[in-house]
Amino acid sequence: MDPYMIQTNGNNHIPSVLDVHVNFGGRSSVPGKMKGRRTRWSVRPSDMSNKTFNPIRAIVDSMKVKPNPSKAMISLSIGDPTVFGNLPTDPEVTQAMKDALDSGKYNGYAPSIGYLSSREEVASYYHCPEAPLDAQDVILTSGCSQAIELCLAVLANPGQNILVPRPGFSLYRTLAESMGIEVKLYNLLPEKSWEIDLKHLESLIDEKTACLIVNNPSNPCGSVFRKSHLQKILAVAARQCVPILADEIYGDMVFSGCKYEPLATLSTDVPILSCGGLAKRWLVPGWRLGWILIHDRRDIFGNEIRDGLVKLSQRILGPCTIVQGALKSILRRTPQEFYHNTLSFLKSNADLCFGALAAISIIRAVSSGAMYLMVGIEMEHFPEFENDVDFTERLVAEQSVHCLPATCFEYPNFFRVVITVPEVMMLEACSRIQEFCEQHYHCAEGSQEECDK
Amino acid sequence: MDPYMIQTNGNNHIPSVLDVHVNFGGRSSVPGKMKGRRTRWSVRPSDMSNKTFNPIRAIVDSMKVKPNPSKAMISLSIGDPTVFGNLPTDPEVTQAMKDALDSGKYNGYAPSIGYLSSREEVASYYHCPEAPLDAQDVILTSGCSQAIELCLAVLANPGQNILVPRPGFSLYRTLAESMGIEVKLYNLLPEKSWEIDLKHLESLIDEKTACLIVNNPSNPCGSVFRKSHLQKILAVAARQCVPILADEIYGDMVFSGCKYEPLATLSTDVPILSCGGLAKRWLVPGWRLGWILIHDRRDIFGNEIRDGLVKLSQRILGPCTIVQGALKSILRRTPQEFYHNTLSFLKSNADLCFGALAAISIIRAVSSGAMYLMVGIEMEHFPEFENDVDFTERLVAEQSVHCLPATCFEYPNFFRVVITVPEVMMLEACSRIQEFCEQHYHCAEGSQEECDK
Repeated sequence: MDPYMIQTNGNNHIPSVLDVHVNFGGRSSVPGKMKGRRTRWSVRPSDMSNKTFNPIRAIVDSMKVKPNPSKAMISLSIGDPTVFGNLPTDPEVTQAMKDALDSGKYNGYAPSIGYLSSREEVASYYHCPEAPLDAQDVILTSGCSQAIELCLAVLANPGQNILVPRPGFSLYRTLAESMGIEVKLYNLLPEKSWEIDLKHLESLIDEKTACLIVNNPSNPCGSVFRKSHLQKILAVAARQCVPILADEIYGDMVFSGCKYEPLATLSTDVPILSCGGLAKRWLVPGWRLGWILIHDRRDIFGNEIRDGLVKLSQRILGPCTIVQGALKSILRRTPQEFYHNTLSFLKSNADLCFGALAAISIIRAVSSGAMYLMVGIEMEHFPEFENDVDFTERLVAEQSVHCLPATCFEYPNFFRVVITVPEVMMLEACSRIQEFCEQHYHCAEGSQEECDK
Repeated sequence: MDPYMIQTNGNNHIPSVLDVHVNFGGRSSVPGKMKGRRTRWSVRPSDMSNKTFNPIRAIVDSMKVKPNPSKAMISLSIGDPTVFGNLPTDPEVTQAMKDALDSGKYNGYAPSIGYLSSREEVASYYHCPEAPLDAQDVILTSGCSQAIELCLAVLANPGQNILVPRPGFSLYRTLAESMGIEVKLYNLLPEKSWEIDLKHLESLIDEKTACLIVNNPSNPCGSVFRKSHLQKILAVAARQCVPILADEIYGDMVFSGCKYEPLATLSTDVPILSCGGLAKRWLVPGWRLGWILIHDRRDIFGNEIRDGLVKLSQRILGPCTIVQGALKSILRRTPQEFYHNTLSFLKSNADLCFGALAAISIIRAVSSGAMYLMVGIEMEHFPEFENDVDFTERLVAEQSVHCLPATCFEYPNFFRVVITVPEVMMLEACSRIQEFCEQHYHCAEGSQEECDK
């Protein structure tokens, strides 16, 4: 490479600590070591990247166990409804994308918060008299993950805290801690269909609490909050003046006999950022089209929070424009039958799974929405296993069934079952879990109960 | 709403400062005001959102001037090649997307850094003996903006600094300052075809310098660095042990007679994160498919920086999977003719614009790549105007031609022309700029030169 000579004269920008390269006969000397100058390479990752920690990855990656070679692997671990091919999206959804491509209108940059026309469609789709929305209340994002990221980034400063459900989706902690925001976990109560322990929730709130995350329907619990419970959550937020981030990515995904209430429809004062997207209901999680719905009828967020979200959106400029262009048709043309069929399938699988696993009495609450079921392990009856990670590892090794240990959701001694797999696979998986439990079940010491398993 | 009662007994999590809600005859009292408890709403945007500042938005949004109603508006301000419809993407690119949709294989989650198969395609497309790449050296991102964001986020801590070209793309500052990273601007030299002032560059480096951003071909300059200049840049980085973030989103977009050299092909030691994507060369900026190519032959980044990038990618989970699924065909099947046609068109427009504007002697350097031309304003000859913002505002008001004042790129007294507009529009715009300059040109006081304009 050409040597390049530094001259110390004539440039105000040269700091006094800069070393001088001396040129002898046209060849640069080795530079002298001086203060303020690096003489060796040392490139270290930032604190932020070090703090970006995904517990699911950490736990799953450290599970080195191999499946039983005599049994085909059944994975009930990934919250992706598309992996088995039994839940394709609707043809109208695919067609909408092709139409957007053919129009040639959606190749350029959109505004960083999304096309106005696409935001209008989302607003009108979710608008209702109790929680009115128009385009300016909608921000399109690169998946629901970015929606949550933007909400946390606009509401909380480093050193503040957020309230997060336990068990709960691990991304909340991953995002918060990467930004230096403290996570306080409030308990969900398995014996009360995973309702929030409101007393515990309220006890955690302090001056530094920036927001409360409410996830309904719940990942990983598969639970759906009743209207009266949602009202009580809102009462806590109102009393404590804490805004809510409502993770409603599984909104409308509730089984028959159960009703989904968007949190904002019940709020008269608490400002709410509701996060959602196409991922789950339209069965296209990879397309990365999410949104934030801003509900702020008392003007508590005001223009400042809205402007803050817009400014943050300019960092990476929103979701893929083809998906944005397809939104109108996706929201308008997807037949009701499609949603209905998905939900019937999920309910049938949930019932099947509940029936099979409740029989071995390690299950606590039936699933009523989303795509999951939480199964409790009565650890006292499984003394061979140290914890849920150990339990699920051995389940892979012996039965080739992979479930996520709920330690991934900060809730030991449970595991999460994904109920989107084909029925025959669900049945087979349940029967293997039953066999596994029967093989390893021990009566607890001193137990008075009959032990015939 | 249902009142909800707090009890102070039996819960270790209740802090001592929590106030007690007293229940009288079934109705909650108004809670008493106590320390550690909020009694009124106050939701303020975070420091990070306040620090996220996009100078282009700030400057353009404050330009309230209306175009001349008797002349149709011509916008030469937006770096989006698709807005006029004269530069559609290739039919193979659109077909690749449809095939990806029809396959039904790309609806689910991809790994957060992108499908292995898609990363293999990018690696093999950009692989060369001087700068070898395989899939593990590629991270797919939501547009080149996210690529740059991830690189800065992994390399720099708050309080460190990065070196950024002046004039340069405003996103570098927007991202850095939102993360608390200081921006140090190094000069480009218009009289030397916008080469880097290497002396100035090196003078800015200190112990806190986390990386050097090199943007080639350049937005906003339209310049392309020669091999010998790139080697000198690498020599500075090597001497100072500073890694490089190479923004090569306009890579390969250089006009005939000029050669683009990927920086990494010339580096034997300096570790380089090269950012690119589909946006410009394939004319689909809205699709948000970018990438980071990790070049680290001396193992200076090592696994730590790679792991850091992977961890950061898990925050929002990568680009749209349909575009990822289409990548293989896009990279393999787009005909050479397509790239060639785009570049001939851009060169013809650049020449046309240079010819028209050089005649009125306010232009400094011909464009040799990318999609831009920087035009200098000899402000001493335009005493009516305060600065470039004022100049370009009046150009809109009188001639309905909108160019971005280069204050947007931290380079006053220039403006940037986008050369992707249809030829007839380019000609008309140039003729209006000529007219405008002729109308407002004044001989400088005491000038000896002939003033016949």
